[in-house]
Amino acid sequence: MGKELLEIPPDTPVYTGSVTDIGCHIKLLLYYNGSELIKKTDLTVEQLKDFKFHKGYTYWISIVGLNDTEKVQEIGKIFELHDLTVEDIVNVHERPKIEDFDDYLFVVVKELLFDRESLKIDFRHIPMVLKDNIFITFSEEWTGIFDFLLKRLEKSKSRLRQRKSDYLCFSAIDVVIDKYFKIFEEIGEVVEDMEDRVLKEPDETLVEQVHYLKRELIFVRRNIWPLREIINDIIKADYTFIYEPTKVYFRDAYDHTIQIIDTLESFRDILSGLLDVYLSSLSNKMNEIMKTLSIIGTIFIPLTFIAGNYGMNFRYMPELYWHYGYFAVLISYVVIASGLIIFFKKRKWF
Amino acid sequence: MGKELLEIPPDTPVYTGSVTDIGCHIKLLLYYNGSELIKKTDLTVEQLKDFKFHKGYTYWISIVGLNDTEKVQEIGKIFELHDLTVEDIVNVHERPKIEDFDDYLFVVVKELLFDRESLKIDFRHIPMVLKDNIFITFSEEWTGIFDFLLKRLEKSKSRLRQRKSDYLCFSAIDVVIDKYFKIFEEIGEVVEDMEDRVLKEPDETLVEQVHYLKRELIFVRRNIWPLREIINDIIKADYTFIYEPTKVYFRDAYDHTIQIIDTLESFRDILSGLLDVYLSSLSNKMNEIMKTLSIIGTIFIPLTFIAGNYGMNFRYMPELYWHYGYFAVLISYVVIASGLIIFFKKRKWF
Amino acid sequence: MGKELLEIPPDTPVYTGSVTDIGCHIKLLLYYNGSELIKKTDLTVEQLKDFKFHKGYTYWISIVGLNDTEKVQEIGKIFELHDLTVEDIVNVHERPKIEDFDDYLFVVVKELLFDRESLKIDFRHIPMVLKDNIFITFSEEWTGIFDFLLKRLEKSKSRLRQRKSDYLCFSAIDVVIDKYFKIFEEIGEVVEDMEDRVLKEPDETLVEQVHYLKRELIFVRRNIWPLREIINDIIKADYTFIYEPTKVYFRDAYDHTIQIIDTLESFRDILSGLLDVYLSSLSNKMNEIMKTLSIIGTIFIPLTFIAGNYGMNFRYMPELYWHYGYFAVLISYVVIASGLIIFFKKRKWF
Amino acid sequence: MGKELLEIPPDTPVYTGSVTDIGCHIKLLLYYNGSELIKKTDLTVEQLKDFKFHKGYTYWISIVGLNDTEKVQEIGKIFELHDLTVEDIVNVHERPKIEDFDDYLFVVVKELLFDRESLKIDFRHIPMVLKDNIFITFSEEWTGIFDFLLKRLEKSKSRLRQRKSDYLCFSAIDVVIDKYFKIFEEIGEVVEDMEDRVLKEPDETLVEQVHYLKRELIFVRRNIWPLREIINDIIKADYTFIYEPTKVYFRDAYDHTIQIIDTLESFRDILSGLLDVYLSSLSNKMNEIMKTLSIIGTIFIPLTFIAGNYGMNFRYMPELYWHYGYFAVLISYVVIASGLIIFFKKRKWF
Amino acid sequence: MGKELLEIPPDTPVYTGSVTDIGCHIKLLLYYNGSELIKKTDLTVEQLKDFKFHKGYTYWISIVGLNDTEKVQEIGKIFELHDLTVEDIVNVHERPKIEDFDDYLFVVVKELLFDRESLKIDFRHIPMVLKDNIFITFSEEWTGIFDFLLKRLEKSKSRLRQRKSDYLCFSAIDVVIDKYFKIFEEIGEVVEDMEDRVLKEPDETLVEQVHYLKRELIFVRRNIWPLREIINDIIKADYTFIYEPTKVYFRDAYDHTIQIIDTLESFRDILSGLLDVYLSSLSNKMNEIMKTLSIIGTIFIPLTFIAGNYGMNFRYMPELYWHYGYFAVLISYVVIASGLIIFFKKRKWF
Ligand SMILES: [Mg+2]
Ligand SMILES: [Mg+2]
Ligand SMILES: [Mg+2]
Ligand SMILES: [Mg+2]
Ligand SMILES: [Mg+2]
Ligand SMILES: [Mg+2]
Ligand SMILES: [Mg+2]
Ligand SMILES: [Mg+2]
Ligand SMILES: [Mg+2]
Ligand SMILES: [Mg+2]
Ligand SMILES: [Mg+2]
Ligand SMILES: [Mg+2]
Ligand SMILES: [Mg+2]
Ligand SMILES: [Mg+2]
Ligand SMILES: [Mg+2]
Ligand SMILES: [Mg+2]
Ligand SMILES: [Mg+2]
Ligand SMILES: [Mg+2]
Ligand SMILES: [Mg+2]
Ligand SMILES: [Mg+2]
Ligand SMILES: [Mg+2]
Ligand SMILES: [Mg+2]
Ligand SMILES: [Mg+2]
Ligand SMILES: [Mg+2]
Ligand SMILES: [Mg+2]
Ligand SMILES: [Mg+2]
Ligand SMILES: [Mg+2]
Ligand SMILES: [Mg+2]
Ligand SMILES: [Mg+2]
Ligand SMILES: [Mg+2]
Ligand SMILES: [Mg+2]
Repeated sequence: MGKELLEIPPDTPVYTGSVTDIGCHIKLLLYYNGSELIKKTDLTVEQLKDFKFHKGYTYWISIVGLNDTEKVQEIGKIFELHDLTVEDIVNVHERPKIEDFDDYLFVVVKELLFDRESLKIDFRHIPMVLKDNIFITFSEEWTGIFDFLLKRLEKSKSRLRQRKSDYLCFSAIDVVIDKYFKIFEEIGEVVEDMEDRVLKEPDETLVEQVHYLKRELIFVRRNIWPLREIINDIIKADYTFIYEPTKVYFRDAYDHTIQIIDTLESFRDILSGLLDVYLSSLSNKMNEIMKTLSIIGTIFIPLTFIAGNYGMNFRYMPELYWHYGYFAVLISYVVIASGLIIFFKKRKWF
Repeated sequence: MGKELLEIPPDTPVYTGSVTDIGCHIKLLLYYNGSELIKKTDLTVEQLKDFKFHKGYTYWISIVGLNDTEKVQEIGKIFELHDLTVEDIVNVHERPKIEDFDDYLFVVVKELLFDRESLKIDFRHIPMVLKDNIFITFSEEWTGIFDFLLKRLEKSKSRLRQRKSDYLCFSAIDVVIDKYFKIFEEIGEVVEDMEDRVLKEPDETLVEQVHYLKRELIFVRRNIWPLREIINDIIKADYTFIYEPTKVYFRDAYDHTIQIIDTLESFRDILSGLLDVYLSSLSNKMNEIMKTLSIIGTIFIPLTFIAGNYGMNFRYMPELYWHYGYFAVLISYVVIASGLIIFFKKRKWF
Repeated sequence: MGKELLEIPPDTPVYTGSVTDIGCHIKLLLYYNGSELIKKTDLTVEQLKDFKFHKGYTYWISIVGLNDTEKVQEIGKIFELHDLTVEDIVNVHERPKIEDFDDYLFVVVKELLFDRESLKIDFRHIPMVLKDNIFITFSEEWTGIFDFLLKRLEKSKSRLRQRKSDYLCFSAIDVVIDKYFKIFEEIGEVVEDMEDRVLKEPDETLVEQVHYLKRELIFVRRNIWPLREIINDIIKADYTFIYEPTKVYFRDAYDHTIQIIDTLESFRDILSGLLDVYLSSLSNKMNEIMKTLSIIGTIFIPLTFIAGNYGMNFRYMPELYWHYGYFAVLISYVVIASGLIIFFKKRKWF
Repeated sequence: MGKELLEIPPDTPVYTGSVTDIGCHIKLLLYYNGSELIKKTDLTVEQLKDFKFHKGYTYWISIVGLNDTEKVQEIGKIFELHDLTVEDIVNVHERPKIEDFDDYLFVVVKELLFDRESLKIDFRHIPMVLKDNIFITFSEEWTGIFDFLLKRLEKSKSRLRQRKSDYLCFSAIDVVIDKYFKIFEEIGEVVEDMEDRVLKEPDETLVEQVHYLKRELIFVRRNIWPLREIINDIIKADYTFIYEPTKVYFRDAYDHTIQIIDTLESFRDILSGLLDVYLSSLSNKMNEIMKTLSIIGTIFIPLTFIAGNYGMNFRYMPELYWHYGYFAVLISYVVIASGLIIFFKKRKWF
Repeated sequence: MGKELLEIPPDTPVYTGSVTDIGCHIKLLLYYNGSELIKKTDLTVEQLKDFKFHKGYTYWISIVGLNDTEKVQEIGKIFELHDLTVEDIVNVHERPKIEDFDDYLFVVVKELLFDRESLKIDFRHIPMVLKDNIFITFSEEWTGIFDFLLKRLEKSKSRLRQRKSDYLCFSAIDVVIDKYFKIFEEIGEVVEDMEDRVLKEPDETLVEQVHYLKRELIFVRRNIWPLREIINDIIKADYTFIYEPTKVYFRDAYDHTIQIIDTLESFRDILSGLLDVYLSSLSNKMNEIMKTLSIIGTIFIPLTFIAGNYGMNFRYMPELYWHYGYFAVLISYVVIASGLIIFFKKRKWF
């Protein structure tokens, strides 16, 4: 990006992702009603252009590959999408949102990805268009969470088959949310593991990891809060293609986003608390180390001084010639050491 | 959970709790009016199916055992509950909420459980359905707080007997809230005990415990704030089965939730402050330890050097042959030590 | 409390305070208009029952002693108070609030008490009922702030005498607020004293006291914020017994609560800042202590080594036989010590 | 104050300031229209009483000296001010606010005063009354910021002369706000100076000063936030004596208060950050000090031990009689010291 | 500024920037419709005065040089701008805002400037006026971001050419926002670099830089939050010269500002976290340093004492004459050292 960004007019589609080896095509074109389900896969954009849509079916079109922006623009033209929508479809950095373009509804959600080894959290951009009986999902590559949708759709008795495109849209958002739960469970295990370690074997890599995870969660937060607003919007606003009976399902999804946000905030609180525990544990260790050194030092330093004193080579040092001089010194060792030990005991140093 | 979660359609009931040895049954079926009270216990779902409800009574049905989701679904069918309600009944992780399904009101509250030894806080999932003159409570196992309700109901002069199902619903929520007070009193004692310890005998286990309790309170918070919204909702919204004279009682319950939230926030503030006091106490101790070592070290190090100097075996060291050399050294010990002690006194080191 | 709490029906009055030696009685029954003022003291509840109220007077009834809940219930019956109001009157833990019961207004405020020695802050529960031309105050014992009201009432030219019961209610709340100012002035002096000490003679008891005062202020906060809402409510809502000309006085009282809240928040901010100053001062001292030890140690340790070296008893140590060997060592002392002192000076250690 | 405060009825004027040597008088009585300007100074309250006001002029009356509350009450009677307004005029602790008394508008603002040496921030209480074509300002003593207003008024072509009393009121508030800018510039310089010092020559007085300035800014905050609300109120509410064309000027003043609030919050953020930098700099220094001591100590302690060992006077110590014993020890010194230096280098201690 | 500021009437234009060598002139006067584009550069204010505007074109006038306030006032007169608008045009410290003056819309935005070396962030003041078909931008000097606008305008097929002045206004704001993205990318790299350094090679300059960048971001925040409000305002309010079809573009710009705010808050969170990591890393190092010193010290101090003891010159010290005395001492060295090493190992010190 950089200078070029400033030269690009605001509604020019620019692909900002990194999956460039998948040409844009129609991975799936599915249409169904209660009794029938027809499934076509891997159509070209040209084939889509020639396809006829009928009122009696609900259509799910899954577009895969966003790097070929010209193809995406062509698809945009087929469904009469606004240039800004096409731009948002190919901009994988676009935040989750909902936009009403009178004759269609545009929704962006993010699938959550987590690598437990590196603690790296990523997001997969999933724009969606709901236009009457047609529901279109976009993604850089075919994502596994759509498999689950597909399986349910194939059962002719499933509620999905009985209902319209708005319920299909809800179901797509719902699997995305369920993925958050799945991953938050994993993150929860990581956090609990960190809590165990901070108490049992704290080391510096822990601080790094806590910092890293906190940092990653900042970005999760940026994607979850808007998700909650999107669903709230669907419940409260009166969008043309969202029908009343489906709203109770979105209300359920709303509950889930609240639960996810609560969990996220708990993670943040716990991780912040961990740093405090870690620091207090460091301070504690330091105290113990210094206490040990101080006790040893404080006891032996005076004794060594006494020994040093009688190691001097002055010709006239009467004590050296006393018969019990050495034994007197040995006794003074014991007296001083005992005195200091009693002193430390009284101060509860050990 | 995990992968499977993503495969489950959104309204499939999945039991998420751990009490699996109690089959789902009707622990209690109670109906009453001002003059009569009939109580049946331990009915099967089939018996419930055949039961006839009349207008002249208020019914309280307490369902126990949520792991047998099919039975819960059957009960759902008897009372015409939405699939999503049934799902929320058996999902013990569902957060507190209120949902209006036109012909019934669905409320989820959480009974608070606290183990003072381990500081572990738990929640018991208590979904409730209020449908005209029928009030249904669900729980994984029979909970003691319902005993109190039962006792009051059995007194024919109690207000409970004079009033309708909405007052019964209020009373059920009220005992749940009273349980919060009872447990918060215990937590308050734990917190006060921690405050005493941080000042008198701070050790590292205290930090662990403070961290742990703070962490547990995060989860309490997640369950109390929605409770407040639920009750506020009942007061403000115009639900079909909540009558005006009962609202003043809910207003009283609202007061209680505010008081509980206030107390919770106080706990959090106090616990956060405790960590600061602990750290400052550690720093203080460190200062004292180092001061002791430094005073001893700083006084004896120069003396030991002097002694060492005259312990050298050079042939030509005139001082060694001075008659009062040794006494001069002894005097230099006193002078140096006194000087340093005055120096430390002036700096207010002791 | 405990288990019993759960067994008590929600509208059963339970006295939660500690003043049990004062039987419930009518400490004061005062009625007045612009020209007349009649004052009766120490009536029994039975005498109150027989008392006739007239339209032409404003009545102030001050009930003292809340532990005899049956008596309070009887009084409740005389004035037709809701059972929940009676419960809130005897529950001294009830938070400040305002409740409109159509035919009367129920207000709870808290008198602030402060013991400067122990820094302990307490609250005296003062419920109030405003019912047409009758204004009733309750308290566990006769509180001095009512003396001031009484004195003003006795002056026949005072505004209090010219106005109605709503102005009397305002005046009662106003003296409660004035008490907050008085005590906040004392707390302000304590805080300033703490600030002086943290800079001049910080010790660990200071941390304890700061923590304790912060903790007490948390509870003050819980009682002041609702007070502000109460008064705002009186100004904004349209309560039957609060007349328009009195609202400008409540607007003045509102100003005062804002001022009190501002002051409270300042105290909290300053106390939090104090801990930081204290910790930085501890760190500073530690640095100074360690610097002193390090300078002494670093200078003498090499010198002592040199001395030790020439204290060895090897037969063949040529230096020992050099004529100026000892003087060479003395010079090396000076050189090394000077070098280290210059090194420390350059690093600005002293 | 204290006990007495509680005895004072709510609308009794009590002067709470410290300027008691200025009797209350009319410092300035100015009236003007586009063509004429008449200026009278130092009138007594009696002279004001006899003064006749006309419709064709705009009047500015500046009252100086608030300690003579009786005189202020008399002035209040002349302009029919509410007793509460008079009380607020003489209470210099009254916070900034706006109050609409139907036939006049009462505004309180605070002039900011800053002493750069002591970092002390003070406020000068400036109540204002706007009543039709009369604008009255009060202050404990004549403040310089009114000189600027006066100068502008004296220019017959100034906008002030063309417009009405509401513009005069705006102008008075505007000079107060401009004073905030002027002083915030000075505070900004102080803050920048503190930032320089924390990096270059941090010492403990810096912490004191940062704490003190933060503390003073808390009080500034208490006076600025209400100022913003006052101006917003003037723009949004429909006050009788504020005409539409003047509102655009208040909108400009609103911008300025936002800018001032932004700046204040920046100061607070920066000062908070400074403490962190200071503490991390202390920790850094401590590390360096301890590293130096540790390196010296760790290197010489073993060497000194070796020297000590061969300083023992055992009769049978074979090494002492080896010809190259001493040289072996010297070599061991070099080997041990080099080894430790390499060890420290590897650990990157220097 | 200073005293003078207080003397300046509120609507007097005062140039507050530092670019004084560019006289005020019309850098660009461009007018176009779908088919035509006429571009004039470097006109004087006098030439502008004589210029005739027509309905059939959209005009973009770019004024450069704000220090000559009289010229700016003249331009203000040509377009009938309010005096307050002219003042805000030349006051480069004016915060971002939108103001509706019935016959024109006044917008202030800030171009972001960042110097990666010094981490210094600056803002370029860009006031804009939208008056029917005329769009005027002001700036202290010609800014490069307008070049991009110009290039797009010159393409006759660009959307800019097809649309009206409101779209031109949007495009100008949009390039300003794109600049934020560009610079935030650079800041993001700086922040990531800081994160690397805190883990790999933390030093004190890092703290300075983190503090400095945090401080600079405070000021960025002050300019971005109002930007978001401006755009929200344009979408929500019904401004005369913003037409409905352009609002969808502003909605897109709104998305961008949210994204920028999110990113800014992430930077702040990460930088705050960095300080914690840095401090914990310092504490860790300190612990390691002290552990090394303590281990060495604690092992050798007792040994050195033993050596010192047998270095005393008492005549009667039986051990000295034992044949294996020296070897006994050597063995005691090994025993003591091993014992201490085992002790440390057990405590997991190394
Ligand atoms: Mg964040
Ligand atoms: Mg976001
Ligand atoms: Mg759910
Ligand atoms: Mg939840
Ligand atoms: Mg939250
Ligand atoms: Mg903390
Ligand atoms: Mg939390
Ligand atoms: Mg929750
Ligand atoms: Mg209550
Ligand atoms: Mg409370
Ligand atoms: Mg809170
Ligand atoms: Mg704190
Ligand atoms: Mg609090
Ligand atoms: Mg409260
Ligand atoms: Mg007042
Ligand atoms: Mg105030
Ligand atoms: Mg606050
Ligand atoms: Mg702090
Ligand atoms: Mg503050
Ligand atoms: Mg205030
Ligand atoms: Mg301005
Ligand atoms: Mg600003
Ligand atoms: Mg703020
Ligand atoms: Mg901070
Ligand atoms: Mg800020
Ligand atoms: Mg600003
Ligand atoms: Mg976008
Ligand atoms: Mg974003
Ligand atoms: Mg945000
Ligand atoms: Mg923030
Ligand atoms: Mg922090």
